[in-house]
Amino acid sequence: MNRPVHGGNLAWAAALAGCPPAAILDFSASINPLGPPESAIAAIQSHLSELTAYPDPDYGQLRAILSQVHHLPVDWLLPGNGSAELLTWACRDLSKLEVTGLVTPAFSDYSRALKAFNSSVLECPFENFGLSILDVGLVLGTLTSKISPQNSGLLINNPHNPTGQLFSRKSILPYLEQFALVVVDEAFMDFLPPEQQQSLSEVVQDYPNLVILRSLTKFYSLPGLRLGYAIAHPDRLRRWQQWRDPWPVNVLAAGAAAAVMQDVAFQAQTWAWLPVARSQLYEGLAQLPGLQPYQGAANFLLVKSELSTVELQKRLLLRHQILIRDCLSFPELGDRYFRVAVRSEADNQRLISGLAEILSEGAGEQR
Amino acid sequence: MNRPVHGGNLAWAAALAGCPPAAILDFSASINPLGPPESAIAAIQSHLSELTAYPDPDYGQLRAILSQVHHLPVDWLLPGNGSAELLTWACRDLSKLEVTGLVTPAFSDYSRALKAFNSSVLECPFENFGLSILDVGLVLGTLTSKISPQNSGLLINNPHNPTGQLFSRKSILPYLEQFALVVVDEAFMDFLPPEQQQSLSEVVQDYPNLVILRSLTKFYSLPGLRLGYAIAHPDRLRRWQQWRDPWPVNVLAAGAAAAVMQDVAFQAQTWAWLPVARSQLYEGLAQLPGLQPYQGAANFLLVKSELSTVELQKRLLLRHQILIRDCLSFPELGDRYFRVAVRSEADNQRLISGLAEILSEGAGEQR
Repeated sequence: MNRPVHGGNLAWAAALAGCPPAAILDFSASINPLGPPESAIAAIQSHLSELTAYPDPDYGQLRAILSQVHHLPVDWLLPGNGSAELLTWACRDLSKLEVTGLVTPAFSDYSRALKAFNSSVLECPFENFGLSILDVGLVLGTLTSKISPQNSGLLINNPHNPTGQLFSRKSILPYLEQFALVVVDEAFMDFLPPEQQQSLSEVVQDYPNLVILRSLTKFYSLPGLRLGYAIAHPDRLRRWQQWRDPWPVNVLAAGAAAAVMQDVAFQAQTWAWLPVARSQLYEGLAQLPGLQPYQGAANFLLVKSELSTVELQKRLLLRHQILIRDCLSFPELGDRYFRVAVRSEADNQRLISGLAEILSEGAGEQR
Repeated sequence: MNRPVHGGNLAWAAALAGCPPAAILDFSASINPLGPPESAIAAIQSHLSELTAYPDPDYGQLRAILSQVHHLPVDWLLPGNGSAELLTWACRDLSKLEVTGLVTPAFSDYSRALKAFNSSVLECPFENFGLSILDVGLVLGTLTSKISPQNSGLLINNPHNPTGQLFSRKSILPYLEQFALVVVDEAFMDFLPPEQQQSLSEVVQDYPNLVILRSLTKFYSLPGLRLGYAIAHPDRLRRWQQWRDPWPVNVLAAGAAAAVMQDVAFQAQTWAWLPVARSQLYEGLAQLPGLQPYQGAANFLLVKSELSTVELQKRLLLRHQILIRDCLSFPELGDRYFRVAVRSEADNQRLISGLAEILSEGAGEQR
């Protein structure tokens, strides 16, 4: 079985660990451990009777709820079969430009979608991660001197995966003034409490050249359901609707999305859990020899490791049935970094203990 | 509310009829009234616990089952988010050719997908429908004298929607020898008993220039779930996987698909029901004044009407809460044709009685 490119391929990990997939303690996929909310499962159950009808191609009910949440007109919002589906169409728009600046390391699906329409890409290496709220200009640096922004695109991830870095809204605004198209993947933005979020959704009506991608997968623990949405100018979203099929979101996913977006209790619970559990995980990792975690704004932490992380990953699987996310799919990071999701305090402690045992064996066993 | 382009927009019909959508007797969407099979709902229930993990991007379990059903290697089969999602990518391949021959009237989503990638289209009007198994050459006629087939594509629907016409496998083979790419949408093929099917799946390994699209939506009454698959050369399907996102089918849909493909009892039940119910509906319609139904191989019938079908549709909705499919989205047919799904014998009788009442009012009320 091939090593998975994305986090969360439990079948691969289970085969290696010699256990059923459900027995793996999965830190590789950055999924909220509190979910899925009961409201999601209840909504799915209540929509089973609607499977015999096509979904509403306008997704009217879901868009009305998204509209309320974001205080935007309904036609500025478009549901998709996961934000990855919408990324495909955003990258088709980017491909029409001379070049697209891409902050790297980057989620590997960005490359897939950019290549799908033969985009020219200029990588903007992000090296100084680990600070608190950052000016995206420190990453984009001299990009605007190398290209002509008015004919170019920009693809940013905020908070940034895999570093967890949050870029300030204010620092992105100047790029919206300059670039022909700016796509901001905010897949992890909802993990921040509302007052700390740096989403561009509140300025989107001022920028027809802005696309925001949001995911319901991670916060609501529903990666199996495929659910995301785009926030962008209605003309752009209508064009995408002519490119893709009329019913990309099935009725169960659309029903669950409508329910969870209104589940304020689950949202509050997550916002209460995350800062505490993330601090615990950070502190535990920071105390281990040879590991350096980075502060992050989302529900995962990037960790630098003196030991090969492929080796660490293998030993954690074999001995503890714990899966961490290696960073081999991020060529800029390679074998000396790994990423872990923030889980419950008990799970986090299992990871820390497992790592402590392996790391205490010393350099002699390193390959 | 806008008139729907596709069949099955119950929200529009219910608003017009002044009743809840569930109260509409829907003949507009060509969906098997026997479904969904219990096996589908059971599979969805049993996969709810997997929503917290990403779908397997290889869809290994589902592809293995499709592989068994079609006696083809797994990499010749690719699941999609409804066959409409796969149509998008098939049309991207067609768009690279000089021109694509399209049998018309055609399902309106073909035009959407062909336009999405700026394909040149040459329409091949299908006029002599109503025969039994037909030579597709009678429709394609002089196409090969107008274009150079080796640089051209062909998009065929078999059985053909909305006429119900079945083309013989044998009659399509010569076009596979000549054309650069032939896409055959077999969305309704499974309504024929296996021995009567004219699917090209059994010859697909001989033709790397053939794409077959299949749907699970209609036969298994799951249009809300979005489920289809393509049968084509592995190189082509791998290219499509690089174009689209890694997880287009959610875990509930993938689980249901695996279950229903093995539900031989439901399949047998459908094959037993359809010929009887379709004959009953055909005979009932043929006896009504001003209506001429056409014999069809699928689970719907096309009907020619002397009365405006928009008017018929409206009266059926207002008086009987029955929805038929007007053919306004098929410009070649327009207002003098409608399409009806074959439903249970009791439902079919309700339609026939409703139509009889309206048609007996005579020409005086025609607009």
